[in-house]
Amino acid sequence: MNEWEERLADDGIDLAAARRGLLDFCVETPSWGYANTGTRFGKFLQPAAATTLAQKIEDAAEVQRLTRIAPAMAVHVLWDFPDGFDPKVVSLAAERGLRVGAINPNVFQDQCYKLGSFANPDESVRRRAVQHCVDSVEIGRAAESDLLSLWFADGTNYPGQDDLVRRKKCMADGLREVHAAMPESMTMLIEYKPFEPATYATDIPDWGTAATLARQAGTRAKVLVDLGHHLPGTNIEQIVAILLDEGLLGGFHFNDRKYVDDDLTAGSIAPYQLFLVFNEIAAARARGNAAPVAYMIDQSHNLKPKVEAMIQTVATLQALYARALFVPREKLAAAQRAGDLVAAEECLRGAFFADVGPLLAEVREQMGAAADPLAALRESGYIEKRAAERNPPGGVASDVDSGSSYA
Amino acid sequence: MNEWEERLADDGIDLAAARRGLLDFCVETPSWGYANTGTRFGKFLQPAAATTLAQKIEDAAEVQRLTRIAPAMAVHVLWDFPDGFDPKVVSLAAERGLRVGAINPNVFQDQCYKLGSFANPDESVRRRAVQHCVDSVEIGRAAESDLLSLWFADGTNYPGQDDLVRRKKCMADGLREVHAAMPESMTMLIEYKPFEPATYATDIPDWGTAATLARQAGTRAKVLVDLGHHLPGTNIEQIVAILLDEGLLGGFHFNDRKYVDDDLTAGSIAPYQLFLVFNEIAAARARGNAAPVAYMIDQSHNLKPKVEAMIQTVATLQALYARALFVPREKLAAAQRAGDLVAAEECLRGAFFADVGPLLAEVREQMGAAADPLAALRESGYIEKRAAERNPPGGVASDVDSGSSYA
Amino acid sequence: MNEWEERLADDGIDLAAARRGLLDFCVETPSWGYANTGTRFGKFLQPAAATTLAQKIEDAAEVQRLTRIAPAMAVHVLWDFPDGFDPKVVSLAAERGLRVGAINPNVFQDQCYKLGSFANPDESVRRRAVQHCVDSVEIGRAAESDLLSLWFADGTNYPGQDDLVRRKKCMADGLREVHAAMPESMTMLIEYKPFEPATYATDIPDWGTAATLARQAGTRAKVLVDLGHHLPGTNIEQIVAILLDEGLLGGFHFNDRKYVDDDLTAGSIAPYQLFLVFNEIAAARARGNAAPVAYMIDQSHNLKPKVEAMIQTVATLQALYARALFVPREKLAAAQRAGDLVAAEECLRGAFFADVGPLLAEVREQMGAAADPLAALRESGYIEKRAAERNPPGGVASDVDSGSSYA
Amino acid sequence: MNEWEERLADDGIDLAAARRGLLDFCVETPSWGYANTGTRFGKFLQPAAATTLAQKIEDAAEVQRLTRIAPAMAVHVLWDFPDGFDPKVVSLAAERGLRVGAINPNVFQDQCYKLGSFANPDESVRRRAVQHCVDSVEIGRAAESDLLSLWFADGTNYPGQDDLVRRKKCMADGLREVHAAMPESMTMLIEYKPFEPATYATDIPDWGTAATLARQAGTRAKVLVDLGHHLPGTNIEQIVAILLDEGLLGGFHFNDRKYVDDDLTAGSIAPYQLFLVFNEIAAARARGNAAPVAYMIDQSHNLKPKVEAMIQTVATLQALYARALFVPREKLAAAQRAGDLVAAEECLRGAFFADVGPLLAEVREQMGAAADPLAALRESGYIEKRAAERNPPGGVASDVDSGSSYA
Repeated sequence: MNEWEERLADDGIDLAAARRGLLDFCVETPSWGYANTGTRFGKFLQPAAATTLAQKIEDAAEVQRLTRIAPAMAVHVLWDFPDGFDPKVVSLAAERGLRVGAINPNVFQDQCYKLGSFANPDESVRRRAVQHCVDSVEIGRAAESDLLSLWFADGTNYPGQDDLVRRKKCMADGLREVHAAMPESMTMLIEYKPFEPATYATDIPDWGTAATLARQAGTRAKVLVDLGHHLPGTNIEQIVAILLDEGLLGGFHFNDRKYVDDDLTAGSIAPYQLFLVFNEIAAARARGNAAPVAYMIDQSHNLKPKVEAMIQTVATLQALYARALFVPREKLAAAQRAGDLVAAEECLRGAFFADVGPLLAEVREQMGAAADPLAALRESGYIEKRAAERNPPGGVASDVDSGSSYA
Repeated sequence: MNEWEERLADDGIDLAAARRGLLDFCVETPSWGYANTGTRFGKFLQPAAATTLAQKIEDAAEVQRLTRIAPAMAVHVLWDFPDGFDPKVVSLAAERGLRVGAINPNVFQDQCYKLGSFANPDESVRRRAVQHCVDSVEIGRAAESDLLSLWFADGTNYPGQDDLVRRKKCMADGLREVHAAMPESMTMLIEYKPFEPATYATDIPDWGTAATLARQAGTRAKVLVDLGHHLPGTNIEQIVAILLDEGLLGGFHFNDRKYVDDDLTAGSIAPYQLFLVFNEIAAARARGNAAPVAYMIDQSHNLKPKVEAMIQTVATLQALYARALFVPREKLAAAQRAGDLVAAEECLRGAFFADVGPLLAEVREQMGAAADPLAALRESGYIEKRAAERNPPGGVASDVDSGSSYA
Repeated sequence: MNEWEERLADDGIDLAAARRGLLDFCVETPSWGYANTGTRFGKFLQPAAATTLAQKIEDAAEVQRLTRIAPAMAVHVLWDFPDGFDPKVVSLAAERGLRVGAINPNVFQDQCYKLGSFANPDESVRRRAVQHCVDSVEIGRAAESDLLSLWFADGTNYPGQDDLVRRKKCMADGLREVHAAMPESMTMLIEYKPFEPATYATDIPDWGTAATLARQAGTRAKVLVDLGHHLPGTNIEQIVAILLDEGLLGGFHFNDRKYVDDDLTAGSIAPYQLFLVFNEIAAARARGNAAPVAYMIDQSHNLKPKVEAMIQTVATLQALYARALFVPREKLAAAQRAGDLVAAEECLRGAFFADVGPLLAEVREQMGAAADPLAALRESGYIEKRAAERNPPGGVASDVDSGSSYA
Repeated sequence: MNEWEERLADDGIDLAAARRGLLDFCVETPSWGYANTGTRFGKFLQPAAATTLAQKIEDAAEVQRLTRIAPAMAVHVLWDFPDGFDPKVVSLAAERGLRVGAINPNVFQDQCYKLGSFANPDESVRRRAVQHCVDSVEIGRAAESDLLSLWFADGTNYPGQDDLVRRKKCMADGLREVHAAMPESMTMLIEYKPFEPATYATDIPDWGTAATLARQAGTRAKVLVDLGHHLPGTNIEQIVAILLDEGLLGGFHFNDRKYVDDDLTAGSIAPYQLFLVFNEIAAARARGNAAPVAYMIDQSHNLKPKVEAMIQTVATLQALYARALFVPREKLAAAQRAGDLVAAEECLRGAFFADVGPLLAEVREQMGAAADPLAALRESGYIEKRAAERNPPGGVASDVDSGSSYA
């Protein structure tokens, strides 16, 4: 044992288990995270931003090449397959060493969804929305993806706008129907969000509603936790613990936020909170709870360069997960039993600030990843090359949005 | 029809139904709302504050005398029966025209509860807490009360302090045991609260957890909604709608708040929100949902005179409920179906600002209540008389608390 | 005196003063409130939405015709004068019975403003932004407007992104320069906002910063309070009281919100709060504080029909202001002096729920407004006619935005 | 250079400057942090809690002995000098190697302060409160303390309760009077807080009001930032930056919070935020801003053992300050100028997770502190000894509070 290993052993940390846990860790990146995005006040364009699906795959593959823990790319049906699903996407991804991750239907953008999708007052709109999700199940089958990830913008903007109970019942009906269409291998992830774009009542506002709807939809419906989708102060790690215990945690949309659903890079504002979320996962694993949990990134990099932000995020998630694996479980449990608050807390704080560098280096080397993925990206000149290709000087920006809101 | 009735008919308001609804409306006042209370910075004493159970019954009876819609007083086992339950309390209340309302056990105040009650790491403390609640069931039986109202201060103050999953399982176990001890006629109300006094994780932080635990405890366990127990921005009326639809709404603790669990008089900060809560109840009643809902006040009148604040509250609740009964249901439903946001919203706004005075006058007269209960209280000199009796000049304040916290 | 007047007199309400106050009340509507707007998830188009400045003036004039208290329309330099200011707009407005209201520069939308405007790290961008505001001063002069209304999206999205102190100094420098360019008759309004679009630190996050910058800019710089620009729980009416007392209140952007800067129609979520804001104004007027305060609407009607929402808003503001004028000042002051909390509060609650209908009817008739402006709009068929003209069947939607964000 | 020093040099960190900065860092502990405290629901007693001033000095001296950076103890006039100031306290402290820190008057606990102190509607109460603060100035003089630390519970609980403008004027008057009584060497610290115990409007709710009042009081009045006194989402480090730039930052009350003013040990919930606060201080120091800033702890350790929590806090503050001193200023500034968000952010993140252990060890050794103060305390048996002395078995708990509030 070297000095570092001795110190870990002294602190009660099981290095071998941490190593195994870290080798198992991987995370999906989202296709839409490589494209230009904005706020309601406008969009700042990046010359290297991807516009075609092929470009998004190219970017996701670069993230995977440098990190080796991002083997799948989530897709967004409307944006990635505007002309219908093309099965060649699977082989295209495979050529780049990727697979297709979660399938994300879109039932919020078309003009018909102004008053909602599954919960729309108009039955024909409800039918169209459900059908789009059923079609997305088929895309998942064709793309060899086992995750159907559902986010609904459904809600109301003003008190009285609609009947909240009717909307709830329609939402439940639609989810049941989509669940019935899913193959046995597929998991439905139901995302909740307290507000935005709805400004008065979102139809799936919290984990309680998502869990209720998941139970009613069927056994393969689970809850998706997006870290940015909570009211101020919410103890997210406790929700994770509860869902894990109820067998209802489906996965995560990682990102960070200071105010609302800011979609910042994970761990950029509240790294300790993200560590505490991972701590609940690691604790469940240590208890023998081996239920699958999908780790997905969902961020909107308005200012940071897309691929750079994605690699920064993947590396941050890996490092914080490593820290959670450094929590000395037995020491912690003993302190908890004894009601020794300070000793228990110091088990977590010690792990959070622990030196995980040697373990990260070892695991990255073993996986064939760059030792410092962010530095490797910068040295590679990847972003500059893509910018030159995708938006050659003198070319026309393809994606201008003038914005329309005023604060 | 007089002019006022004509206007209501024109607006599509069913006055007869509103009258019936209002005649059915009543609310429990809490025994602890008549006693001195404070903040962690100290307590400001009121000479008329009640200290004995007999005094609390006297005050509650005065509220009932003037309003006629407050026939029951909730009791707090530890504070009201410090020497054990005395069955004479039932007849004492009856003499004053009252009955005993919800039974509130106390498993948060004794020194042994420092690290929790049902979720305490120490099994002997957990047993003591469960036994106290089982004993409270017996008190309820003896006091002819059908409501067992459970609030837990259980939680943790720091990350890592305890195992959140173990705590959840213990909480579920304890509730099941208490439920099993309840007679068929009794309903268990499980209250949730996001924080305070716990500062990191409260064991029943939200309605989702309360509903999960209620389902696991048994069929007579329901969720109690305290209006002050939500994170900023929470759409409370939507939670009410969801719980009503799931058959899980047990009742309310009414109060208002601007910031946290301020325990202000109901409707003093956000009257429109409270109206919207009542609107969901009224809508459910109109849909034929007749499940019982317990209306209870839980406030802490640090500065307002106790009985005055209580009468102000009861009158406010009655008036806001009346406004909710003035919502023209059919007109509203038609506007909702048509996606006519403004017309739908105006149905609510119109009812909120409607002239409910004539209906209140009529109902109060029919019930034998004062036309203006607050004015009647002031004219009666009740507070001054009680002050003189309970804290005669030269007497010693019985209840001084020096406070100990610093901001 | 009729019965209603008698009741008011009994309650200590000065009806004549209320009448005068209400006759003086008017509010600017914003040109951008008549155009299609959206969220970051997309835009729902309305066939009657205005796209040209002439159409916006047409809509604003309709609001004025029906309410008679909306004589000015605020303009947005970039959106309303994309090809430079055209002095004909003044006569065009005048023909419709309107004048040009506050001038709103735009220093947030062009690609160069990605890292800010007045606070951008790049000096050439800072210069361009300041020059645009100086040019806007000239537009104001030409348009005979005395209000320069400044909102900055400036801020940073991540910790460390920029030097907060340098940004503050640059912001102060720019404002001083623009203030120096203003004619004596012009007032600069400085708006604050805690977040959005900036996600980490907005350069003018709160009234304290806005006031500090206003004092440093010059004597004609004041603070603009947008009701949606506060953190949860903020006591806005107290900020209004403080700014009034410091001589720093410049005006309002009215709207309402449940969560963040939702830009809902004023009074739709928290009508009592808006009443309390007006109460502070009315109290200041009663104290003799006659400093001008600009009332402006700033809303984003994503779902409600534009003109309908605007008329609903103007009528709501007028009615809530009327309620604030019904507060019996002397009775209130006496209760406050006596420490009689309940009596003092009831002065406000009584006014809030008072019957202001007769006064509104009288004032509207005197002004030549519709008795019920919203109903009059609906009966007029105005929206249908504009929709047919502006987006004839078979025409092409001019303003499609595909959205790009994912929650 | 050893390997660690080389790595720091590579990262652009000025180790010598960091060492100097850390040697200068010290923090006051509060006398009330050694005594039993509670919530409005009751108080959990600790056998080792201090009750006399001598015991508090004993505890503070133990913290100083083990950390060597806590040389002063803040005092609370009412609790520490209930029978008037005793000059012997200065020598008693000196014997223990301590000095008296900030003087904290108490104008919130006596019954007369029910409706406020400096802002009370009753002039005689206002006078009494101002006099108490003037007397506290004299105590400061006698105790050789140069800090007068003012927190006001003043505020209102309900809309309309009092005239917000009159209260503001009275607050300003009182502060001016106290400032005039201060010797030249004394600094007045004015603390702000958005709510609690006031539930509607606190008279000094935010830094903007505190700064306004400080400017009006006099040149030695500054703003005190308590980390727990902000609405959710507030960017506290930006307020610190603004106050530093305006010459108005007086000092800090350190603690942490997840929800409201939870008074948790500093850095226990949001360590990165506290690091960012220190980063603004370190940046100002690097810019040459050498204005004194008072570092004080203000926590309420309801569950953690008092002295243990205090040592944990002092050590945490020191370590986080060390991390802030590890930010490579020049590298950061270059990245900021270049608009390189990711590189700039990584300067902060790198410092936050840097290995500060060797520097802490070196500095602690140089100062004569324990290498691991928390471990040293636990090994010393200090807490057990004090518990045995202060609350011998069979003795009577001196400080029982039954609690009175119900959630």
